[in-house]
Amino acid sequence: MNDTFLKACRGEAVDYTPVWIMRQAGRYMPEYRAVRGDVDFLTLCKTPELAAKVSLQPVDILGVDAAILFSDILIPVEAMGMGLHFSESKGPVFSEPIRSRAQFEKLIVPVPEDELSFVGETIKILRRELKVPLIGFSGAPFTLATYMIEGGGSKNFLYTKKMMYQNGALYKHLMEKITDTVTAYLRAQIRAGAQCVQIFDTWAGVLGPEDFKAYALPYVKTVIAALQGEGVPIIYFVNGCAGLLKEIKTSGAQVIGVDWKIDMAEAVRKVGKDYSVQGNLDPCALFMGQKGLAKKIQSVLKKGAKAKGHIFNLGHGVLPETPVENVKFLVDKVHELSRR
Amino acid sequence: MNDTFLKACRGEAVDYTPVWIMRQAGRYMPEYRAVRGDVDFLTLCKTPELAAKVSLQPVDILGVDAAILFSDILIPVEAMGMGLHFSESKGPVFSEPIRSRAQFEKLIVPVPEDELSFVGETIKILRRELKVPLIGFSGAPFTLATYMIEGGGSKNFLYTKKMMYQNGALYKHLMEKITDTVTAYLRAQIRAGAQCVQIFDTWAGVLGPEDFKAYALPYVKTVIAALQGEGVPIIYFVNGCAGLLKEIKTSGAQVIGVDWKIDMAEAVRKVGKDYSVQGNLDPCALFMGQKGLAKKIQSVLKKGAKAKGHIFNLGHGVLPETPVENVKFLVDKVHELSRR
Repeated sequence: MNDTFLKACRGEAVDYTPVWIMRQAGRYMPEYRAVRGDVDFLTLCKTPELAAKVSLQPVDILGVDAAILFSDILIPVEAMGMGLHFSESKGPVFSEPIRSRAQFEKLIVPVPEDELSFVGETIKILRRELKVPLIGFSGAPFTLATYMIEGGGSKNFLYTKKMMYQNGALYKHLMEKITDTVTAYLRAQIRAGAQCVQIFDTWAGVLGPEDFKAYALPYVKTVIAALQGEGVPIIYFVNGCAGLLKEIKTSGAQVIGVDWKIDMAEAVRKVGKDYSVQGNLDPCALFMGQKGLAKKIQSVLKKGAKAKGHIFNLGHGVLPETPVENVKFLVDKVHELSRR
Repeated sequence: MNDTFLKACRGEAVDYTPVWIMRQAGRYMPEYRAVRGDVDFLTLCKTPELAAKVSLQPVDILGVDAAILFSDILIPVEAMGMGLHFSESKGPVFSEPIRSRAQFEKLIVPVPEDELSFVGETIKILRRELKVPLIGFSGAPFTLATYMIEGGGSKNFLYTKKMMYQNGALYKHLMEKITDTVTAYLRAQIRAGAQCVQIFDTWAGVLGPEDFKAYALPYVKTVIAALQGEGVPIIYFVNGCAGLLKEIKTSGAQVIGVDWKIDMAEAVRKVGKDYSVQGNLDPCALFMGQKGLAKKIQSVLKKGAKAKGHIFNLGHGVLPETPVENVKFLVDKVHELSRR
């Protein structure tokens, strides 16, 4: 068992900097596309054998130091009772977004062992196969709320902010129901075998710090506090964290995920000595030549080394157009350059 | 002549905090929609009498402390020789994006007094009518380059970053041609009567600090250095500035525009005592009730007061759905709460 990743999460001494890659199981990889060719995306997420198969691919092919459950952040939202489909042009679409109390009332808090049992089964298969730690994950309450309220992706998140500002009671009730869902979902993942969980707050970066503190962070704190007794490290990743790190680091998470739009040295300074950091190479750097890419990797490693612990990652998910050989080069280079 | 805005740009004592609003002439205002009902967007930009008319509307209706030329950041790009149209669903579209040396070679550096003479004429009309200062503007070189290379808006700016990383010589030549265009364009605006210019870097926030410093900032510095002799204050606004302020403040601009995704107090600390700041209320705050809105305004004013000079503004453009009465309330409240 390679536990370098878990040691870095806890800030313990490691022989080299561990690395995994957000969306490491995905369309950039021909082996993934081969599996995906036969099934649609949601079926892939919900079929344990297939979800496990694609989760394992990057471990075998790239040699990353952690696997992550293959799934989608909207899977538990669908289980709350919202009809979900994926459109080629628009991405995820909820045909009936939550805008009223009546719509909210119809939402349930799913029991993970029932409505989401395929997730636990996937995790069990993975734990039997893996020689590296398995990361479970969920969307953060705010990010899930934006999809539920907007009905999909958004530019200005106006419906979400309108509910926050104009109908605070409904917003709070909705966030509490999502928080309960996320907590139970992550707890079930841990109890099924996930050795770490990451909470993805893809959209919290559209909030200013005061609003983040009032409307997003308290719910993340509730989730994390409820999971502390489970004994696994928690990673909290906010895309667009540059202006929010002072607040983010109070979340209770042991590891703070950092996107690429802030200098890693500044992020490490802001996070301080009590938390490990994860990040933060621009996913587009994987389109550089290997000489330029190596320089960028070295820069992130050098700055990350000042943190309590450092897990190398991209600052956001790997892009579908990315050349696999550069991802492989990245993983090898992180190991080579960081070996003590 | 109300010169409060210009005084604040220069960091001189003012009786109250001046305020204007990005996109203050726009679709949220019925008087604008009435003009726009008869003409398409590009015709409106290019017809001096009409462009001047809508530029004046927010000054008359809201009582803002500055007017801004009504135009679009892509107007000079079209004059470089790129066919531009606006699509209802996709926004601006260039049918032939710049991806090759041959395409680049066909671009010209337009002579503002010839190809863009309508801009100078609009400015001259405005200066005759206005009792507040007139702001001219341009997109920053990087932001204009993204539209030219991507062919419109983008999610990951992959074509732009690919050119940066894989074809550095072409990227540099393109940026230099855009820089020459922006410099001549802004100089012409100032010589026609603009009393301040703002450089909008809408997309530079997708670059990490190292890339911003290498691929965007040098060209902005060149523009600003070339304009310093013109004797008007320059505002440099980067959307997504939170991780970039250390670099941004070296641009040479007298005023640093700040979006809402960073605490204004932190932004003022980072900018330091040598530059004025502009910003930074979340445009969505205009959907709050007036009590909540007043509280947010007060918070921005209090933090902005620590800067060399503070110009109140939103952290990005006002949204089309915004209630006009709240924008009017905002302007009055900024004046009332800040009056010394």
